[in-house]
Amino acid sequence: MSREEEIKEFILHGYKYYIPHVSIDCAIFGYHERQLKVLLIKHKLLNDWCLPGGYIKRTENLVEAANRNVKERTGIDGLFLQQFKTFGDPNRLKPDEFDVEKWFEATGVRITRDCWLLDQTISVGFYAITDFSSSIPQPDIFADACAWFDIHELPPLDFDHDEMVKEALHTMRVQLYHYPIGYNMLPEKFTLAEIHSLYETLLGKKLDISNFPKKLIALGLLKKTDEKRSIGAHRSPHLYTFDKASYDEALREGLVLS
Amino acid sequence: MSREEEIKEFILHGYKYYIPHVSIDCAIFGYHERQLKVLLIKHKLLNDWCLPGGYIKRTENLVEAANRNVKERTGIDGLFLQQFKTFGDPNRLKPDEFDVEKWFEATGVRITRDCWLLDQTISVGFYAITDFSSSIPQPDIFADACAWFDIHELPPLDFDHDEMVKEALHTMRVQLYHYPIGYNMLPEKFTLAEIHSLYETLLGKKLDISNFPKKLIALGLLKKTDEKRSIGAHRSPHLYTFDKASYDEALREGLVLS
Repeated sequence: MSREEEIKEFILHGYKYYIPHVSIDCAIFGYHERQLKVLLIKHKLLNDWCLPGGYIKRTENLVEAANRNVKERTGIDGLFLQQFKTFGDPNRLKPDEFDVEKWFEATGVRITRDCWLLDQTISVGFYAITDFSSSIPQPDIFADACAWFDIHELPPLDFDHDEMVKEALHTMRVQLYHYPIGYNMLPEKFTLAEIHSLYETLLGKKLDISNFPKKLIALGLLKKTDEKRSIGAHRSPHLYTFDKASYDEALREGLVLS
Repeated sequence: MSREEEIKEFILHGYKYYIPHVSIDCAIFGYHERQLKVLLIKHKLLNDWCLPGGYIKRTENLVEAANRNVKERTGIDGLFLQQFKTFGDPNRLKPDEFDVEKWFEATGVRITRDCWLLDQTISVGFYAITDFSSSIPQPDIFADACAWFDIHELPPLDFDHDEMVKEALHTMRVQLYHYPIGYNMLPEKFTLAEIHSLYETLLGKKLDISNFPKKLIALGLLKKTDEKRSIGAHRSPHLYTFDKASYDEALREGLVLS
């Protein structure tokens, strides 16, 4: 199928392959050197930016749908994905505002009011965190652009996506106390100062220096290596690494850090 | 409309009033004197018990749908409802197992394979906690029974509702550290031992006696009254009450108890 045929088939008969009325949206947070960003896309048919998302194939579960989406937008497979909330306000999407002419120009398909894409949709929100420097943002077939935006300088977002980002951030911050986070955002070996910076940036606040890293060590998630890094005169902090088995168990079982 | 006509209209044309493919399910936990129960219904068309739930009206948001459901099943309006997870495994419901003859006997309506009720459905899970002694369980139009079951003695549940109860309990226990819980499960004035019992029962484990109640006091959620209760020779503990304004703010904003 050509790209045009693919788009036409999706618009006219997508309900055969995807579950109508339900979408997923992904708040993908990107961390790198004390910066926290979120990935946004610019949909051809909308004026503002929005979170990447899409429909759920009839053969996949929700996490598989989210993972497919995250992989398509970032090139990264298998990120830890966490559901944070499902959004279902009857006014969250306003299909009446879709401009049929603009839709036709963008896709070559003339839609009618009973198109499955224009009915009420409930969306399941997932968040993920990654190192944004290791990603290659890639727009979907309905988008012109896909890019990282600093969490403190977001443009206005379409639909209820402002609320989604806020809720995703809130849940991520609460869950920092319950799940280990960091495996894919730090080099394989890192200093306690580096993981401390990561937690401060994700939480958006200063932390007592003795706080998280020591708890991660006490819980067996961090292992001290024999290596040190030289960062200046008389300063050569030890390097640490994650204990992958303990880390994976904590992801499955949860833990209380605080 | 008679009850029969109402059932027929729902089965044949319910998709006009409700969003297809999406349901809500409610894990309503009931506390009373150190017992923790969950409300279950016995659907006419299913062999096992399941959580109460239903579809979302096209005019209501998810919390309104959950609240309507909880109110219909328990008689209690306005319980604090918390989304815990959305379930979308493609095998979570097995409509093929529905027995069309049994369905006809129970409802008087002969359904066909393309009935909107038989297509894939994703379900948004909510939990609530209440004092079960103040509820009046009431089956819905498709159920024969509605009753409280001790959390430690649950029957086998239909669909993926075993997993739902497990996830609801897990989320409720994690959220005990982040939201105040107790307002509708204790008498207006209570002893610290009573609220301590409530937390122990909800968490399913023993707590250090100095733990939660003192934190609730420190956070301004509990106020000491001038009254005492006489519970034996030389024992007359002070009675406490919730500070409703602080409590409501903590519900909105969240807090960290631990």
